[in-house]
Amino acid sequence: MDFKKLIGNAKQIEGFKCRVCPQCNGKACRGEVPGPGGKDSGMAFIRNYDKLNEIKVNLDTIYAPVSVDTSLELFGKPFRYPIFAAPIGGLIPNYGDKHGIDDYHYSKAIIEGCKRAGTIGFTGDGAKDEFYTEPLRVIQENEGWGIPTIKPWKQEEVIKRIELAEKAGVPAVAMDIDAAGLILLAMAGKPVSPKPVEELKEIISATKLPFILKGIMTAKGAEKALETGASGIVVSNHGGRVLDHTPATVEVLPEIVRAVGGKMKILIDGGIRTGLDVLKVLALGADGVLIGRPYVVAAFGGAAEGVELYTNRIGVELEEAMLMTGCGSLQEITSEVIYK
Amino acid sequence: MDFKKLIGNAKQIEGFKCRVCPQCNGKACRGEVPGPGGKDSGMAFIRNYDKLNEIKVNLDTIYAPVSVDTSLELFGKPFRYPIFAAPIGGLIPNYGDKHGIDDYHYSKAIIEGCKRAGTIGFTGDGAKDEFYTEPLRVIQENEGWGIPTIKPWKQEEVIKRIELAEKAGVPAVAMDIDAAGLILLAMAGKPVSPKPVEELKEIISATKLPFILKGIMTAKGAEKALETGASGIVVSNHGGRVLDHTPATVEVLPEIVRAVGGKMKILIDGGIRTGLDVLKVLALGADGVLIGRPYVVAAFGGAAEGVELYTNRIGVELEEAMLMTGCGSLQEITSEVIYK
Amino acid sequence: MDFKKLIGNAKQIEGFKCRVCPQCNGKACRGEVPGPGGKDSGMAFIRNYDKLNEIKVNLDTIYAPVSVDTSLELFGKPFRYPIFAAPIGGLIPNYGDKHGIDDYHYSKAIIEGCKRAGTIGFTGDGAKDEFYTEPLRVIQENEGWGIPTIKPWKQEEVIKRIELAEKAGVPAVAMDIDAAGLILLAMAGKPVSPKPVEELKEIISATKLPFILKGIMTAKGAEKALETGASGIVVSNHGGRVLDHTPATVEVLPEIVRAVGGKMKILIDGGIRTGLDVLKVLALGADGVLIGRPYVVAAFGGAAEGVELYTNRIGVELEEAMLMTGCGSLQEITSEVIYK
Amino acid sequence: MDFKKLIGNAKQIEGFKCRVCPQCNGKACRGEVPGPGGKDSGMAFIRNYDKLNEIKVNLDTIYAPVSVDTSLELFGKPFRYPIFAAPIGGLIPNYGDKHGIDDYHYSKAIIEGCKRAGTIGFTGDGAKDEFYTEPLRVIQENEGWGIPTIKPWKQEEVIKRIELAEKAGVPAVAMDIDAAGLILLAMAGKPVSPKPVEELKEIISATKLPFILKGIMTAKGAEKALETGASGIVVSNHGGRVLDHTPATVEVLPEIVRAVGGKMKILIDGGIRTGLDVLKVLALGADGVLIGRPYVVAAFGGAAEGVELYTNRIGVELEEAMLMTGCGSLQEITSEVIYK
Repeated sequence: MDFKKLIGNAKQIEGFKCRVCPQCNGKACRGEVPGPGGKDSGMAFIRNYDKLNEIKVNLDTIYAPVSVDTSLELFGKPFRYPIFAAPIGGLIPNYGDKHGIDDYHYSKAIIEGCKRAGTIGFTGDGAKDEFYTEPLRVIQENEGWGIPTIKPWKQEEVIKRIELAEKAGVPAVAMDIDAAGLILLAMAGKPVSPKPVEELKEIISATKLPFILKGIMTAKGAEKALETGASGIVVSNHGGRVLDHTPATVEVLPEIVRAVGGKMKILIDGGIRTGLDVLKVLALGADGVLIGRPYVVAAFGGAAEGVELYTNRIGVELEEAMLMTGCGSLQEITSEVIYK
Repeated sequence: MDFKKLIGNAKQIEGFKCRVCPQCNGKACRGEVPGPGGKDSGMAFIRNYDKLNEIKVNLDTIYAPVSVDTSLELFGKPFRYPIFAAPIGGLIPNYGDKHGIDDYHYSKAIIEGCKRAGTIGFTGDGAKDEFYTEPLRVIQENEGWGIPTIKPWKQEEVIKRIELAEKAGVPAVAMDIDAAGLILLAMAGKPVSPKPVEELKEIISATKLPFILKGIMTAKGAEKALETGASGIVVSNHGGRVLDHTPATVEVLPEIVRAVGGKMKILIDGGIRTGLDVLKVLALGADGVLIGRPYVVAAFGGAAEGVELYTNRIGVELEEAMLMTGCGSLQEITSEVIYK
Repeated sequence: MDFKKLIGNAKQIEGFKCRVCPQCNGKACRGEVPGPGGKDSGMAFIRNYDKLNEIKVNLDTIYAPVSVDTSLELFGKPFRYPIFAAPIGGLIPNYGDKHGIDDYHYSKAIIEGCKRAGTIGFTGDGAKDEFYTEPLRVIQENEGWGIPTIKPWKQEEVIKRIELAEKAGVPAVAMDIDAAGLILLAMAGKPVSPKPVEELKEIISATKLPFILKGIMTAKGAEKALETGASGIVVSNHGGRVLDHTPATVEVLPEIVRAVGGKMKILIDGGIRTGLDVLKVLALGADGVLIGRPYVVAAFGGAAEGVELYTNRIGVELEEAMLMTGCGSLQEITSEVIYK
Repeated sequence: MDFKKLIGNAKQIEGFKCRVCPQCNGKACRGEVPGPGGKDSGMAFIRNYDKLNEIKVNLDTIYAPVSVDTSLELFGKPFRYPIFAAPIGGLIPNYGDKHGIDDYHYSKAIIEGCKRAGTIGFTGDGAKDEFYTEPLRVIQENEGWGIPTIKPWKQEEVIKRIELAEKAGVPAVAMDIDAAGLILLAMAGKPVSPKPVEELKEIISATKLPFILKGIMTAKGAEKALETGASGIVVSNHGGRVLDHTPATVEVLPEIVRAVGGKMKILIDGGIRTGLDVLKVLALGADGVLIGRPYVVAAFGGAAEGVELYTNRIGVELEEAMLMTGCGSLQEITSEVIYK
């Protein structure tokens, strides 16, 4: 299978709510929640994409080339690329019910494909318990090689889910704290809510796993995340699905990097579509990226093989971008790469 | 009735001059005066809308949630939301003559619908006396629960209308001073004109009702409004219907807030279409908002029930936006909510 | 005749090269030289229009209204409005040969129409001698009430043409110095060229008439114009017809106003389409405006009556704009009117 | 043959991958590599074009005109215009295989046409040896009047090719160092790579010919180029074909001019389409320009005659632009020409 075939497959899936656009930029699906889109005007998704494209990079090929190394260590584990699949849950309500790809099958593609490509996939949670447990079953079937992402439920519910994750042998666990106002959950009557630092501290101290807080969009939020004892954050506006008209994640990244001061790992998602995008956010201080919707296309179009193929594609693009900007390793991707 | 049904109804009204666009942004109706549009190029209306959308907000859900309270007190009266229906008059000339919805029936929907939703509606005035008196009759039928808005007629005419309003038992009275050059009135040969501070002082001191000056677009104008003894102002460019190429209301809001220094209440209209827009202008210092054209759609599509439905819809959106930005009450909506 | 009829007429003229667009903004005719367009990309014309629209004005109707006075004195003559018809020559090559409206008939409409409306028209010059002499004949038939505009020919040729103008009894004479590279003239083999300050001094000292230099686009150019002894300048990029990618005239106006320091009269043309545009450039320091292409539509659609109608239309719009921004006379139109 | 005929010819070529757009701006062919386009989103090509158009120039025709002189000396040779054909190789893979115009025939048009017009053409290199040797054969047939451009191969390969160039009697030799990551070469398995200053020094000291480094996009890169002993650089992003989302060449030109401080000649390419564009980049400090894709149209549409015609066309446009901005010679084209 090549990438063209993968895209062709994805386009033919019956009832697939994603249009498999040539550019996954949030325009065609704007407002489609449930569905693949951003909330209301869709601008929070669209802006993620647009603001990345506004960033320009410095081409320079006068240097002594070395082999380009895209590998990194994160939370004590080695990865081939700083590229991870973002958690996506509720496959049937969001992507259609005719294709039969539920949270189990989707997670299977993600977890196995990322593993084959040398990275790792995040899995989701949602209105039904199975949106959490089914993906976790896939992780278990893959020796714990996945990162479950828990919604901000009541404390005891969160802690119960972390315990399930621990049993599955995962390397880390995450919470998408920005799901506090998620429409789909409100519709299902499941009580999620914002959480103060104290409650997050309680949760994080209840596990020995590295804990990742996803949905940080301000320096202040990052400082609060630091206080909670989290090992990392994901700068994310939930793909624009929880609040319209937020800034782009790449816009708030620099101030968050300054606020964190190296004391936590910083991942970022939001409109990252190419290896050059990965280079850009790493140059701005991120340690790695999460990619969401394109992985849905990869998984639907090629299952685990498609996910592996897509991950390697973005990885190779990152290598090319590093070559053209004089970066031999991820550490060498500094702010000098960005045109000011 | 739900919102979709309301929109469907509005679209089927015979001869309705409003196109019921998915986004009420001033583009389709540009130049349509009489009609629902902005004057000439329509840019003063369009810019109101666009500039609101350019404002980005800070998502933050790490905090101790409380129940969200959207209520406020204004001019001594309690309201459920800081959301009010703007005065609109001349329904037949502006919105068509085939549907039979005149100023009386329109005001009936607005006054009763807002009342049911826990807020209040402003009513209009215009080329014919009945554009003022018919809405006032509706207000009277609703125990005075409405705010009449008087054009800048000659002094004695204004004072006469205020007296009618007092008799109707209204909580406040307004004047759209920016109607001084309104085309429709010029066409009908009715003498409106700008008014100096002295004349406005005379008017305002002639009544014990709180007086609201609508159509302030500069800090200097706000300072003059303060001198007049007005209890509040509405930052408004009359929906772009009196002068082309003004700035957006949300652009001039901050400097007006600074000029007023808390000494008057500040309402604002102009392109406010969502609860998130309400949050944005409150964060910039407004005390409440007026919404115009979408209430026409609500009233035409669902009468008082539609107006109530629409008001609650925007109110619930405001609640959601407050939840996602860490604001438990209107007082907590500060400039920290705005992304800079 | 009303304006709608005028436009309707203009649209039906056989072979009229102007498309009579709803917005005369340089887009449809871009690159059409000969023809009505701007040179090459047409951006110098388009930018004139766009930059005017970017300027926003301060609505303020809290003031003691007086009757609005749009009159002015210029070069010792009284005018009803600060609105003049720009010189346009070569009607057949630029606007088509089927309609039979040559430079004589066009000038007749312009000169007579402007006179009736209380202003004055500029006339043109060009590749053929008759492009200068025929309009001058019209001016003579109207007691000298027109301002001929001479191309930068050789000295003796210019002086000869000024003498003809003096005999016709004109109140002033102009030169479009920016025609130095005009394509149409180059095609006709007529020697025009830039002129140094000395040559312009020689020309200007050869007449007692006020002399207006048209085609100034820099502060430095304005300073040189001052040295020549000119009585006034026209800030103009020749409607974008002599050089692509110049700034808009309204962009360079403020620095030219500063350089001139009140020592010459400053007129401006370039995309002025409404009375509000007139208010904007007067607020930025201009003494009056020239309007070009819309006068072609007015003259073709309604002859002298059309020109009078159009001039009054723009004049009334100026009055309305003054009313809404608190300006009782042209002197009161200051930079305070502009939103910053 | 005139230019219209040339364009008409080009449009009728069977299988020509270039669409011969009215504006050669990178939009229609975006992502077409191989093909005529920019890489991926094509934005690096498009931005070159757009940023040039954003630059505005100062019209001024009050000066003593002299005859306009567009000639210059470069690397000891006289040229009529500062306008050169950029190196383009791999004609069959990039522009189609049905028209039969290979690198030999293309170079013949370029080399002979530029020579006739009084300038010089650069030739290319590529995946196959003949992409270098065939153009060089044309140069030899024209008394060495061409500048071969060598890819960043291994040292011995580069030096071998320089020796071939020396034998052909060329006035200078170039290297497109930014081809270090060229997709087409990677596909053909040919080892190109970045080169450190030391390797470039070794290459440059191996020849007495002036050496031009093409593909400089940063001040730092220009400083490194200075260290290598190069006689000149070409500010270039390879027409957007080697890295997406670089800045435009005209954006980085000023800082490179500052870094070079007059110690090397500075050429530039990237979206230059008119004589006015040439004036703009010369005003910003460049010594001359390379033009790429439009020369393909000229060569395909008119062979050597077309190339001569096109070069003169751009040259005459440059003359006109100089006349309208008061520049009698290339030295007089200073930053004063640019509107700030």
